[in-house]
Amino acid sequence: MPDDASKRIAEIATDTSGPLIAADRVTGTSVYNRDGDQLGTVDYVMLDRTSGQAIYAIMSFGGFLGLGESYHPLPWSMLTYNIRLGGYVVALDRKTLKEAPWHHERTGFAWTAAYGRTIDKYYGVASYWD
Amino acid sequence: MPDDASKRIAEIATDTSGPLIAADRVTGTSVYNRDGDQLGTVDYVMLDRTSGQAIYAIMSFGGFLGLGESYHPLPWSMLTYNIRLGGYVVALDRKTLKEAPWHHERTGFAWTAAYGRTIDKYYGVASYWD
Repeated sequence: MPDDASKRIAEIATDTSGPLIAADRVTGTSVYNRDGDQLGTVDYVMLDRTSGQAIYAIMSFGGFLGLGESYHPLPWSMLTYNIRLGGYVVALDRKTLKEAPWHHERTGFAWTAAYGRTIDKYYGVASYWD
Repeated sequence: MPDDASKRIAEIATDTSGPLIAADRVTGTSVYNRDGDQLGTVDYVMLDRTSGQAIYAIMSFGGFLGLGESYHPLPWSMLTYNIRLGGYVVALDRKTLKEAPWHHERTGFAWTAAYGRTIDKYYGVASYWD
């Protein structure tokens, strides 16, 4: 794990914000499978601009899955925060993540309804876009 | 308005993300009163870590209110997104904002239930903390 990621996780673990977190501090939060293995980290969060509800947590995996720089959106409803781990747990395996929709670019990436529906369908959740 | 703020607003107005926005891109979004006067900008957003719901939008006013560097949390429920303005509208006047709870520090600031309740009570909204 890079030093800055370790530092970020330590900051999150020791902060005093209780149940709240600054939205841009979610970056670097670890995502684990149900066995407690780290699958990756949250790179950024997409909010509904009006309601303020987080709709997707976009994970980056670094070299972990051999995918290089890639952004894998997960429907927020799939994430469960685990206080002990200081991160999110998802009921997913590596294969499911590997084959999931992802995109290369972050900045300027077009979040269309079609892309959103593809994600939601892949994970079998009620779609934000319907 | 500083150049970087103008640029950010232009980016937000022209982005292709439809109803979604990256949480850290909310920074710099303008907040207006009902007359369309700009009151300040959103500096950061506090999310409920578990639900992913934005609870507070923290405004900074720069020199506008003569307060220097200060962070004024607004309950998210008070914000209405206005597509035409490309920003949020609040039914507040300067005096109400000036006298509202605020804090100096962003990093490491302790978001306690007591502070949250003070904010929610000031604005007369149902408290997140109850």
